[in-house]
Amino acid sequence: MDLLPDAPHRRLNRLTGEWVLVSPHRTARPWQGQVEETTQEKRPEYDPSCYLCPGNTRAGGVKTPVYDSTYVFDNDFAALLPEPAGGGVDDNGLLVARPERGLCRVVCFSPRHDLTLGGMSQPALRTVVDTWTEQYAELGALDWVGHVQIFENRGAMMGASNPHPHGQIWATESLPNEPAKELAQQVAYTGDCLLCDYLAAELRDGSRIVDSNDRFVSLVPFWAVWPFETLVLPRTHHGSLTDLDGADRDGLADILGRVTRRYDRLFGITFPYSMGFHQRPTDGGEHPKAHLHAHFYPPLLRSATVRKFMVGFELLAQPQRDITPESAAQRLRDLDSD
Amino acid sequence: MDLLPDAPHRRLNRLTGEWVLVSPHRTARPWQGQVEETTQEKRPEYDPSCYLCPGNTRAGGVKTPVYDSTYVFDNDFAALLPEPAGGGVDDNGLLVARPERGLCRVVCFSPRHDLTLGGMSQPALRTVVDTWTEQYAELGALDWVGHVQIFENRGAMMGASNPHPHGQIWATESLPNEPAKELAQQVAYTGDCLLCDYLAAELRDGSRIVDSNDRFVSLVPFWAVWPFETLVLPRTHHGSLTDLDGADRDGLADILGRVTRRYDRLFGITFPYSMGFHQRPTDGGEHPKAHLHAHFYPPLLRSATVRKFMVGFELLAQPQRDITPESAAQRLRDLDSD
Ligand SMILES: O=P(O)(O)O[C@H]1O[C@H](CO)[C@@H](O)[C@H](O)[C@H]1O
Ligand SMILES: O=P(O)(O)O[C@H]1O[C@H](CO)[C@@H](O)[C@H](O)[C@H]1O
Repeated sequence: MDLLPDAPHRRLNRLTGEWVLVSPHRTARPWQGQVEETTQEKRPEYDPSCYLCPGNTRAGGVKTPVYDSTYVFDNDFAALLPEPAGGGVDDNGLLVARPERGLCRVVCFSPRHDLTLGGMSQPALRTVVDTWTEQYAELGALDWVGHVQIFENRGAMMGASNPHPHGQIWATESLPNEPAKELAQQVAYTGDCLLCDYLAAELRDGSRIVDSNDRFVSLVPFWAVWPFETLVLPRTHHGSLTDLDGADRDGLADILGRVTRRYDRLFGITFPYSMGFHQRPTDGGEHPKAHLHAHFYPPLLRSATVRKFMVGFELLAQPQRDITPESAAQRLRDLDSD
Repeated sequence: MDLLPDAPHRRLNRLTGEWVLVSPHRTARPWQGQVEETTQEKRPEYDPSCYLCPGNTRAGGVKTPVYDSTYVFDNDFAALLPEPAGGGVDDNGLLVARPERGLCRVVCFSPRHDLTLGGMSQPALRTVVDTWTEQYAELGALDWVGHVQIFENRGAMMGASNPHPHGQIWATESLPNEPAKELAQQVAYTGDCLLCDYLAAELRDGSRIVDSNDRFVSLVPFWAVWPFETLVLPRTHHGSLTDLDGADRDGLADILGRVTRRYDRLFGITFPYSMGFHQRPTDGGEHPKAHLHAHFYPPLLRSATVRKFMVGFELLAQPQRDITPESAAQRLRDLDSD
């Protein structure tokens, strides 16, 4: 690095074209603000009041079947509906609205109420990867679905209302903001693939690599916004989960287990985060430059109870972080991943 | 509106070029997730342990003077430093970092520990507006300052670590992401001024207007992301606070008092939010199309304890909201503003 090590600077997020402000000198700042509650109760394997546990009844009276690996169902309170809706608003290009179709699904990762991704066996994680892959294929095959967003909100701090291990999938007609920005940057890149070249640069440098196996690498991106943000990338060029072969999927399952175990060990709690995949749009186009990847966005900064607030300056101007991506990577790397 | 009233749709944020997903049918969704604590203690006029109260000692031993209106000082834990730093990183355009200079200041709105903007008198609010204006002028006059970000984080939920009424100002060398996006949209607009024309469209429609006086209007923008987000706009074209005459500044003070009083009455608590101004960059350019405005981003959704989480889908794809901007405006409008 040719920057003074402690000097405030900004870094370019090459994947979105936006900037993040880094203030490495500021880590000594005392914290007198809100601290989060940590109720790290030991959960039972089965919770009779959990609507995601096998055999229990959901909102609206539907019964969750007795499942033994993963289980997918349509969200009872879906933010999007599959019915086409007509109309739209356009007042001189100033007030513009369009109908949006979509499907929202819930993916239970395991029948066990007490597990998390990091605590699941390699075959069970592989089943989760396979389920995501099938869902991407199935939803993406609908002629009106342009984008399939697979994600997990983990922990009350990230808005999850149920600790049962589960994620969501929202499939939309149009390409949402974030994947649209990333696709535009990937398409504008003059080389073959932006993320293949970026990964090569990271592997050469080494200081932000957290973990790897023969198929996947996890790293703290050079432009990370969240304190312990990570990016998971396949070593070779793949546009989507459906491009992966069996060994790739094993590699993805392995790296996801490692990343989440490192997270859980960092502050000794089930680490809250939102994570999700970005992959090739399903609008029928080829998109040869889209490169599959997963983002992990965890909010915690200093401890189990002190989070990073993305507020005033961040909302109105630009994200800001205190610890450097290099020191975050070092701390994650120093933990055990098995 | 030519959309079905309850149909999911997306709206274009004309000021940033990005979209927001609106799910009006979803308001019946039950909430079982995290609820916030509300400790609405009555605060004393003076708190001997508050470092922003007159006469008390701050971190590093500096004494806050005995002030009687507003008081501005350099942040003791500034995220930015004014010293020029050399260097930078550019690894094939993939890893890109630049030094960033800046100044971070704290603005105490009042010596009284127990007040908030909504509880201050009109002359006291006018003094806050004058202070912001002087700071914008003073910091903007530094030849290396390109942008002056005035903002307030209010409430523990928004990362404020001290309830004493205060805001912050971060002045930066470069133009941050959000004002850069907004400026690009304003410059690309083919009419004279995007926000003047937008305000005219909103005044014609009326359904999203919250409040107004002869100089300023407050409204829930057509593209609002946060449940009760508002935008404050001058009725005529002004690029910055320094363009306002005395009557304009009175009008701004008045509308800020009204907006925050409505907020505080909505759920019967000091309403948490981040707010701030976007105005003409201070890079020496003319920027005739930049239009002064203030954004209020409040996180609460249903009650004093249930917030909107901007998590999985929002972070990875696109912001999503449940209640419509029109119903939010109606609820704010129905409250007393005096
Ligand atoms: O007011 P503070 O304590 O400096 O800090 C607060 O506002 C800053 C600017 O929005 C954020 O970067 C911090 O995350 C937040 O806690
Ligand atoms: O999982 P839920 O309860 O549907 O909802 C959660 O995830 C959604 C998608 O990220 C967000 O829109 C909600 O704000 C959040 O509470």
